[in-house]
Amino acid sequence: MKTPVERLFADYIVREADLLQNFFTLLRFHSISSEKEFAPHVRECAEWVLNYVREIGFEAEIWEGSGHPTIYAERLDAGPDKPTVLIYNHYDVQPVDPHEHWHTPPFEPTVVDGQVYCRGAQDDKGQMFYVLAALGYLIERDGKLPVNVKLVIEGEEECGSSTLSEQLKNPPRDLSADGLMIVDLGLPRPNCPNVTLGIRGITAMTLEMTGSNSDMHSGTNGGIVVNPLHAMVELLSKCRDADGRVTIPGFYDDVQELSPELRKQLDLTFDEAEYRKNFAAEPVGGEKKLSPLERVWLRPTLEINGIGGGYFGSGFKTVIPGQVIAKVSCRLVPDQSPEKIQKLVADFFMKNCPPGVQLKVKARDGGGPAVRALPDAPIVQAVARAYEAVLSDKCRFTLEGGSIPIVTELANTSNADVVLFGYGLNTDNIHAPNEHFGLDRLRLGFATLVRALEEFAG
Amino acid sequence: MKTPVERLFADYIVREADLLQNFFTLLRFHSISSEKEFAPHVRECAEWVLNYVREIGFEAEIWEGSGHPTIYAERLDAGPDKPTVLIYNHYDVQPVDPHEHWHTPPFEPTVVDGQVYCRGAQDDKGQMFYVLAALGYLIERDGKLPVNVKLVIEGEEECGSSTLSEQLKNPPRDLSADGLMIVDLGLPRPNCPNVTLGIRGITAMTLEMTGSNSDMHSGTNGGIVVNPLHAMVELLSKCRDADGRVTIPGFYDDVQELSPELRKQLDLTFDEAEYRKNFAAEPVGGEKKLSPLERVWLRPTLEINGIGGGYFGSGFKTVIPGQVIAKVSCRLVPDQSPEKIQKLVADFFMKNCPPGVQLKVKARDGGGPAVRALPDAPIVQAVARAYEAVLSDKCRFTLEGGSIPIVTELANTSNADVVLFGYGLNTDNIHAPNEHFGLDRLRLGFATLVRALEEFAG
Repeated sequence: MKTPVERLFADYIVREADLLQNFFTLLRFHSISSEKEFAPHVRECAEWVLNYVREIGFEAEIWEGSGHPTIYAERLDAGPDKPTVLIYNHYDVQPVDPHEHWHTPPFEPTVVDGQVYCRGAQDDKGQMFYVLAALGYLIERDGKLPVNVKLVIEGEEECGSSTLSEQLKNPPRDLSADGLMIVDLGLPRPNCPNVTLGIRGITAMTLEMTGSNSDMHSGTNGGIVVNPLHAMVELLSKCRDADGRVTIPGFYDDVQELSPELRKQLDLTFDEAEYRKNFAAEPVGGEKKLSPLERVWLRPTLEINGIGGGYFGSGFKTVIPGQVIAKVSCRLVPDQSPEKIQKLVADFFMKNCPPGVQLKVKARDGGGPAVRALPDAPIVQAVARAYEAVLSDKCRFTLEGGSIPIVTELANTSNADVVLFGYGLNTDNIHAPNEHFGLDRLRLGFATLVRALEEFAG
Repeated sequence: MKTPVERLFADYIVREADLLQNFFTLLRFHSISSEKEFAPHVRECAEWVLNYVREIGFEAEIWEGSGHPTIYAERLDAGPDKPTVLIYNHYDVQPVDPHEHWHTPPFEPTVVDGQVYCRGAQDDKGQMFYVLAALGYLIERDGKLPVNVKLVIEGEEECGSSTLSEQLKNPPRDLSADGLMIVDLGLPRPNCPNVTLGIRGITAMTLEMTGSNSDMHSGTNGGIVVNPLHAMVELLSKCRDADGRVTIPGFYDDVQELSPELRKQLDLTFDEAEYRKNFAAEPVGGEKKLSPLERVWLRPTLEINGIGGGYFGSGFKTVIPGQVIAKVSCRLVPDQSPEKIQKLVADFFMKNCPPGVQLKVKARDGGGPAVRALPDAPIVQAVARAYEAVLSDKCRFTLEGGSIPIVTELANTSNADVVLFGYGLNTDNIHAPNEHFGLDRLRLGFATLVRALEEFAG
């Protein structure tokens, strides 16, 4: 006699070959949202998703906007007595460079040892796909869904969500819901149920530092002119002190202290040995005297995400570059304002820019504040119970250091309780070469979604 | 009654048509040394040069090596009482791209307004050709040369001189000389005589800083891990103090102070307005309290030539890069040892590397010490007096901040006083489309070489 979860697994296995065929088709779209030349591929991907959600039984439409399209779909046949859930995913993906570090073609799904290697295999095509698989299965099995479901699947999560953000200001459809599921997160270990109660906010900017109108010879000009690379390292080195604290005045002013109640429910256990093993990296960054998860969940950061200037390929080219670019982002916690932090940081850079170079600080659109959910909200409890049934373990409550700025706007527009979860793992290499996602993750995600929707129906 | 220089000009005019015919033949060879597919053209050019120097009266041979051939020629009939000069030129040229920016075919010499347009018209076929024209003229006129002359004409100046460098370690012929002429430089203004007394040395290295085995998400890891970009800016910012001095212990220990005599003879005039106009750059880099030309001629520097890590393209990718590369080079002055400085700098980086990241410092091959001649060296005086006779103006003595490592090796091998000069102008577009060289430059160079060899004979 099978348990309900075992039955779900069995039903999944029967459908797996068909599902993977569709999943691999989805993965093959080069839907890189941040690079203009990929726009046609992003659109093809959107159209494929539109057709797929229609095929599984949803009313669906494309919302056009200034950027990449959003897909909206709904199936409200559970009726007015049942709650409504708004589920968010995204079909766009990160760029693939450095291309040479991929062991398999970045857009050709390749299964090795039960892992699908492909850009987007996890983030977020993989997570989106088991949601759609669960919805399709419920409709097929029961002829209807246990709760009313609205889907928002956007195409700009990896480049700021500005189109969806615009659309949410005046949504073409009623997005009100009782629960908002953000299915773009993960688990600390493969079989440890985990619901995320909050994410950090973000604000980001580009620094353009210019020393001259072209690259200069470092022999004939070295010593005469200010090298923008020196000016950039001098400027950026001033942002943090020896204790890992951000030195920008006012940076920590609005940081909300964690309530003792929430702290008691949070699992702040961090496995340093595993972290070292996974990343070959020492977990010794950030502010001293705080534990790793306190630093990544409860404290804001300022990170340099990129510096590019001069020649850094093989061999040597002894130049003084005309211009140097740096990308900087700050992760925010409640109640820091992205706009206020943006201004503080930009002002600090402008004020501390060394003489002899020109600096421009350009804000990135699409930042957003941190979000925190309540542990006892029905949607949070439904997902926690589903996890516990599928993974046979007690659900952990955590926070997340990453940011999904659009979550705040979705929560406001839908007026729903938010729950963030998913089946991602730290080792999936999202945003990096060799991104991958386990075939088992798809199966577990499928079962968890089915159960969560059933639990939420009450 | 003509002056001796007027007689030289008249003799040149008589020969000009013949000389230009040979010069244009030389220019037509596509002797691009850095692009493999041009190797047969480089060799054809070498063979033409070999035959030409034989025709004008030299014993000549080709030195084969791992790359493009070197031409060596000598005529030692001035006899043991007369000094010997070793003259260096190169017959290889830069690539021509961007091809579409050329107004005339890049390898078809075209005369417009007294300027010969062609790749190599100046650098260095033009400068080489007036040297050969002067030598041929002296042999024709006098039956012999006033001094013993050795010629080294290499085919890899534009791609690193590695073949000649190998050959100089164990030269097939005796290259000892009293004076070494490097005829590959120029004048600050068309008729302002200028002799370069020295160049800076160079040593360079690559810094590879590794934080983790792959790029990481700056949300889920920012605050946990040490960002190698932060570690790199922290490390590099420690190399220099607020006064622009390099802070690496021992860096300045062996720096030779300029003798008052040499300082008195150097023209340290620097046109700040022109520098700003040319480069849109402020000449306020390097050590405070020193003038621009003191900084670039008389002081060593440490310059970052490139930093590359993370994402710095359009849009944003919020990563913590696994690895960051930086390229650093030091320009050296007498009596700094490239090996010693290399070790000091590498040790400093290793010792000051922040915790939580791994650093590798890789030395670049092919550096070399600074070279400096004395203004009163006979070869320098001979060239200066020749310039003054031909251009009727007082000769300026300058130094050069750049490095030509092969010059150091030639100076060491020949044990000769070095003088660097030529008739190039900043406006000749060398290394760029529409390179050109004035017909007047050939005439002036011819006369200057004839006079300089006569002056050197005493």
